[in-house]
Amino acid sequence: MATYRAYEVTGKRNFRLVERELVAPPAGQVRIRVEANGVCHSDMLAVEGLRADPSAPVVPGHELVGVIDAIGDGVKIWQVGDRVGVGFLGGHCGVCDFCRRGDFVNCTDQPVTGTAVDGGYAEVAYARASGLVRVPDGLSPVDAGPLLCAGITTFQALSQIDARPGALVAVQGIGGLGHLAVQQANKMGYQVAAIARGTDKAELAAKLGAHHYVDARAEDPGKALKRLGGAAAIIATAASGSSMSPLVPGLAPRGQLLVVGASADPITVQTSDLIFGTRSLTGSLTGSAIENEDNLAFSLAQGIRPMVEVLPLSEAPKAYEHMMSGAARFRVVLDTSR
Amino acid sequence: MATYRAYEVTGKRNFRLVERELVAPPAGQVRIRVEANGVCHSDMLAVEGLRADPSAPVVPGHELVGVIDAIGDGVKIWQVGDRVGVGFLGGHCGVCDFCRRGDFVNCTDQPVTGTAVDGGYAEVAYARASGLVRVPDGLSPVDAGPLLCAGITTFQALSQIDARPGALVAVQGIGGLGHLAVQQANKMGYQVAAIARGTDKAELAAKLGAHHYVDARAEDPGKALKRLGGAAAIIATAASGSSMSPLVPGLAPRGQLLVVGASADPITVQTSDLIFGTRSLTGSLTGSAIENEDNLAFSLAQGIRPMVEVLPLSEAPKAYEHMMSGAARFRVVLDTSR
Amino acid sequence: MATYRAYEVTGKRNFRLVERELVAPPAGQVRIRVEANGVCHSDMLAVEGLRADPSAPVVPGHELVGVIDAIGDGVKIWQVGDRVGVGFLGGHCGVCDFCRRGDFVNCTDQPVTGTAVDGGYAEVAYARASGLVRVPDGLSPVDAGPLLCAGITTFQALSQIDARPGALVAVQGIGGLGHLAVQQANKMGYQVAAIARGTDKAELAAKLGAHHYVDARAEDPGKALKRLGGAAAIIATAASGSSMSPLVPGLAPRGQLLVVGASADPITVQTSDLIFGTRSLTGSLTGSAIENEDNLAFSLAQGIRPMVEVLPLSEAPKAYEHMMSGAARFRVVLDTSR
Amino acid sequence: MATYRAYEVTGKRNFRLVERELVAPPAGQVRIRVEANGVCHSDMLAVEGLRADPSAPVVPGHELVGVIDAIGDGVKIWQVGDRVGVGFLGGHCGVCDFCRRGDFVNCTDQPVTGTAVDGGYAEVAYARASGLVRVPDGLSPVDAGPLLCAGITTFQALSQIDARPGALVAVQGIGGLGHLAVQQANKMGYQVAAIARGTDKAELAAKLGAHHYVDARAEDPGKALKRLGGAAAIIATAASGSSMSPLVPGLAPRGQLLVVGASADPITVQTSDLIFGTRSLTGSLTGSAIENEDNLAFSLAQGIRPMVEVLPLSEAPKAYEHMMSGAARFRVVLDTSR
Repeated sequence: MATYRAYEVTGKRNFRLVERELVAPPAGQVRIRVEANGVCHSDMLAVEGLRADPSAPVVPGHELVGVIDAIGDGVKIWQVGDRVGVGFLGGHCGVCDFCRRGDFVNCTDQPVTGTAVDGGYAEVAYARASGLVRVPDGLSPVDAGPLLCAGITTFQALSQIDARPGALVAVQGIGGLGHLAVQQANKMGYQVAAIARGTDKAELAAKLGAHHYVDARAEDPGKALKRLGGAAAIIATAASGSSMSPLVPGLAPRGQLLVVGASADPITVQTSDLIFGTRSLTGSLTGSAIENEDNLAFSLAQGIRPMVEVLPLSEAPKAYEHMMSGAARFRVVLDTSR
Repeated sequence: MATYRAYEVTGKRNFRLVERELVAPPAGQVRIRVEANGVCHSDMLAVEGLRADPSAPVVPGHELVGVIDAIGDGVKIWQVGDRVGVGFLGGHCGVCDFCRRGDFVNCTDQPVTGTAVDGGYAEVAYARASGLVRVPDGLSPVDAGPLLCAGITTFQALSQIDARPGALVAVQGIGGLGHLAVQQANKMGYQVAAIARGTDKAELAAKLGAHHYVDARAEDPGKALKRLGGAAAIIATAASGSSMSPLVPGLAPRGQLLVVGASADPITVQTSDLIFGTRSLTGSLTGSAIENEDNLAFSLAQGIRPMVEVLPLSEAPKAYEHMMSGAARFRVVLDTSR
Repeated sequence: MATYRAYEVTGKRNFRLVERELVAPPAGQVRIRVEANGVCHSDMLAVEGLRADPSAPVVPGHELVGVIDAIGDGVKIWQVGDRVGVGFLGGHCGVCDFCRRGDFVNCTDQPVTGTAVDGGYAEVAYARASGLVRVPDGLSPVDAGPLLCAGITTFQALSQIDARPGALVAVQGIGGLGHLAVQQANKMGYQVAAIARGTDKAELAAKLGAHHYVDARAEDPGKALKRLGGAAAIIATAASGSSMSPLVPGLAPRGQLLVVGASADPITVQTSDLIFGTRSLTGSLTGSAIENEDNLAFSLAQGIRPMVEVLPLSEAPKAYEHMMSGAARFRVVLDTSR
Repeated sequence: MATYRAYEVTGKRNFRLVERELVAPPAGQVRIRVEANGVCHSDMLAVEGLRADPSAPVVPGHELVGVIDAIGDGVKIWQVGDRVGVGFLGGHCGVCDFCRRGDFVNCTDQPVTGTAVDGGYAEVAYARASGLVRVPDGLSPVDAGPLLCAGITTFQALSQIDARPGALVAVQGIGGLGHLAVQQANKMGYQVAAIARGTDKAELAAKLGAHHYVDARAEDPGKALKRLGGAAAIIATAASGSSMSPLVPGLAPRGQLLVVGASADPITVQTSDLIFGTRSLTGSLTGSAIENEDNLAFSLAQGIRPMVEVLPLSEAPKAYEHMMSGAARFRVVLDTSR
C-alpha cells in the first residue's frame, strides 16, 4: 500500500507526522505531488485551532506547489504532469450566485485550503480542480509558493487601484506581504512609499523598489504621506486595524485605502476624513485561480521574487514557529524534495 | 443709497437683521436678488460660531436661489436676468492642482457659502461665477433651494454607485437628505430600502418610493439588510458615524457604503467585514456646479421635490431653530418674496 | 413510450413537426416542459441553414420558458418544478479561460440555443444547468420569453453606460429590441431619444417612454442628436452597420455607441470623430444567466413588458414567417399551452 | 525696441523668418523664452494651410519648452523663471460646459497651438496660463519637447486601458508616437507587442521594451495578435484608418482599440467583431495640462526619452521637410539656443 507523509494538527499547536494512504482523487479533484509549500500567517487558523472542529486533524498549508499525478472524474483541462499551485481559496463551487456572477472570491461554498480541507504540509495533496493555478516554467516551486497567497493578495489589491501611471502608492508593513507589494507597485510604474516601524527595513525597502521610506515609529504615517503629497492608494498589510486608522488622512483626495491585513482590532475612521477629500476604504481578499496565474506571469516577467528561508518538510513545526516569531525574512517555505 | 436686508450672525446664535449697502459685484462675481434660501443643518457652522473668526459677522445660508441683477468684471456665460443657485461650495478657483484635474469639489481655495463668505439669509447675495448653478424654469425657487445642497449631496453619492440596474440600495436616515435620496434612488431604477429609527416614517418612506422599511430601533439594520439579500449600496445620511458602523455587514459582497453625513463620532469597521466580502466605504461631499445642474434637471424630469416648510425671510432665526429642533418635515425654506 | 412534439428544421426553411421520445436529461442538464417560446430574428441561423451542419435537424428557438420536470446527474441548485428560461447562450462550460475569469458570455465552449443544440419550438427542451435563468412569479411565460433574448440584449448594453443620471440616451431602431430598450432606458432615469425611419412609430415611442423622436428618413440622425445636445450613449439595434455609421457624430464627447445589432455590412467611422470628442464604439452581446435574472427582476419591478403577438406552437412556421416579414408588433411568441 | 526671431508661414509651405516686436503678454497669458520646440506631423495643419485663414501668418509649433519671462494680468500660480511647456491644446477657457465638467480636452474654446495661435518655431512665444505644463528639472528642453505632444498622446491612451497588470498591449506604428508608447507600456508593466511594416524596426523595438514584434507587411497583424493570445489593448498610432481596421479581430474579448492617429481614411469594422467578443474602439486625443505633467513625471522617473534629431531654429523649414519625409528617427527638435 502506497503512502505519503503529512503533518496533521489537532487542537492547538499539536503537530503530528503521519503516514497516509495514497488514494485516488475524488470526482472534481486532482492529486498533487507537493514540491514546496509556503508557511503563511493564516496557517494559524488551523494550527491554533480556530476552525469549525479543532479536534478533527487537518494538514495545514495553502501555498502549495506540485505536480498533478492523478485526476478525478469529471476534471477537464488539467492533466497528469501539470505543475500547479493551490492558494488560500480551495476552489469555487460554480453554482452559487456569486459564482454565477463570476465573483469566485466571494463563493459561498469554497473550502479554505489547509483549514477546512487538507493542505500543503505534506508530500501529497488533493485539491478541487476549480482552485488550481497553473505555475509557469521559470518559477521554482519554492518561489512560486509564497506568490500564491502573499503575492496574489497584494497583486490583487494593486490591480484595483484607480490612479494615474506614476501616482504615489504606499505600502504599509514591510513583511511577508509588503516586501512583495513594494516590488509589484514599482513594476506597475508607481512611485512607492514604504511604511514600517523603525529604520531597520529602510535600506531593504529601497532595494525592493521603494522611492520613499516612512518610519511609523518616528512619525505619524498619515502626516508623512501628506508631506509627500498624499497617497493615491495605500496597501495596508499590517495585521492591525488600529495601525491603519492614522493612514486615512494620508490619502490624497479620491485616494483609496486597500485593506488586506485582517486583524482583531477595528479601523476607526472620521467621517470628515472620508467626506472632505472623498476618500475610500476597500477590503481586498485574494484573487481567483486565473488572477493568480496573472500574478505568477507578472512576477516571472518582472523578476518579482519572494525573499524566503527554506526548510525541509520534516521541520514543518519549527518552520511554523519561526514564521510566527516574526523573525523570518520574509517567507518560510517547506521544500518537500529535501 | 440703495440697501438690502440681511441676517448676520456673530459669535454664537447671535442673529441681527441689518441693512447693507447695495454695491457692484467684484471681479469674477455676480450679484443675485435672492428669491428663496433653504435652511440646512450645516448652517450651524456659521450660526454656532464654528469658523475661522466667529467675531466677524457673516450671512448664513448655502441653498440660495435668485436672479442675477449685476455682473462683475471678467464674468462670462452669465447674464443679468439668469435664474441661478448657489450651494455649499462657493465657486472653485480654477488654478489649484485639483481644479486643473477638474476635481472642483476638492478645490483648495473655495469658500463655503454662508460660512466663509456671505450667503442666502438675505435679499441680495454675491457669488463667484464658477459656483453658479443654472436653475431651470419649472422648478420654483422654494423647491430648488433644498435641492442645491441636500439634493445634490445624495444625487452625487447615488451617481457613484457601481451596481446593476434594479440592485438594492438602502438609504439610512429619512430626514432632509434621506427623503430626497429615496425619491432619487427609486427614479434611477433601484430597489430601495429606507432605514430610520421608529416606525413613524414607514408610510411616508413608501410614498416616496421605498420598497422596504427597516426600523433601526427594533432591529440591527445591518442584519435587516442581510435578510433582504444585502445592499449593493447604502447612502448613509445620519449625522452619526457610530450609527453607520453596524451598516457595513449589511452590504452585499462588493457593496459600497457611501458616507454623506458628517459627524463628530467616528465609524468603526472590522477589517474582516471589509476583506471577506470585499466591501468599501467611500466619502462623498457634494457636486460641482454643473453636476448640480444635472441634479436639478433630473429632479425636474422625474418629479423629485423636497418636502418643505416655508417661512418669510423675516423669520430666519425661528426657521433656524425649527430646523435644529429636528421637527421640520423636512426642509425649512426662507421665502424672500414674503 | 412518452413523446413530445417539436418543430425541426433541416436545410433551409424546411420545417417538420415530429414526435420525439421523452428521455432522461443527460448529466449536467435539465428537462423542461416548455410553456412559451419567443421567435427571434436570430432563429434564422437555424432556419436559413447558417450553421455547421444544416443537414442535421435542429429545433429552433432561444427564448424558451418552462418548468423543469427532470434533473440530470450532477445538477445542483435546480429542482423539478422550478420555472426557468433559456436564452441565446446555452450554458457556459465553466473551465475555459473566459469562464475562469467569470466572463461567461465569451465562453469558448457554449452552444447557441436553437442552433447548435435543440431549442424551444417544442413541447419539451433540454438545457445545460449553467444556462438556466430563474423566472420570477409575476412574469407570464409569454412575457418572459422575449425578455430572455431581446430584453437582456438591450438591458445589458444599457447597464454598461457610464453616464450621469438623466443623461440623453438614444435608441436606434424601434423594433423587437428597441421597443424594450426605450422602456428600460426610461426606467433607469435617462432622457430617451428614439430613432426610427418614418413617423409611424413616433406616437408609440412616446408611450413607451421616449422624450424625443428622430425620423432617420427625414433627417440625418447624427445631426438630430447633436441638435439635442449630443447623446451620452446610443443603443444601436438596427441590423445594419451602415445605418450606425452616421450616428457616431451624434454622440456627445465621451459618448458611447453600444452596438447590439449584428449585420453583414460594416460600420465606417472617421478617426477624427473618435479622436476629437474621445468617443467610443463598443459591442455588447447578451448577458449571462444571472444577468438575465437581473433583467427579469428589473422588468417585473418596473412594469417593462414586450409587445407580443401570440400563436400556438402548431403555427410555428407561420410565426417565423411573420417575424421575418418585419410586420410583427413587436415580438412573436409561441404559446405551447394552446 | 526689443525683438525676437520667429518663423511664420502663410499659405502653403511658405516659411518666412521675421523679426517681431517683444510685447507684454495679454491678460491671462505668459511670455516664454523658447528653448526648444519639437516638430510634429500636426504642424502640417499650419504649414500646409489647413486652417481657418491660411493667408494670415502664423508661427507653427506645439511642442515648445522654455522659461517664463513675463506674466500677464490675472495670471496666478506661474512666475517668471518657471520652466514650462505648451502642447497641442493651447489652454482651456474654464467656462464652457466641458470645462465646467473638468473635461478640458474637449473645451469648445481652446486654440490649437501653432495653428490657431502662434507657436514654438520662434525665440519667444505667448501662451494662455491654463495651457501651461510645468517641466521638471532633470528633463532637458530637447527631450521634453516631443513628450509634450507625442508623449502625452500615447501616455493618455495607455492610462485609459482597463486591463490586468502584465496584459498584452500592442502598439501599432513604431514612429514618433509609437517609439514612446512602447517604452511607456513596458514601464507600466504590460507585455508589449510592436507592430510595424517591414523588419527594419524589429531590433529597435526590442531595445525600447517590446516583447514581441509583428511585421504587418508579412502577416495580417490581427491574426498575429490572435496568435499571441489577443491584445487587451492596441494603441493605434498610424495615420491611416484603413490600417487599423484589420487590428480589431486581434483584440482579445473585452479588448480596446485606442485610436490616436488621425487620418483621412476611415476605420471599417464588422459589427460581429464588436459584438462577439464585446470589443471596443475609443478615440483618445491628448491630455490636459496637468495630465501632461503626470506624463513628464512618469518619463523622468522611468527613464523614458524620445529619440531625437536636433537642428537649430534657423533650420526650421528643413526640419519640417525632414519630419514630413518620414526619414527622421524619430522626432525632430529645434534647439533655440543654437
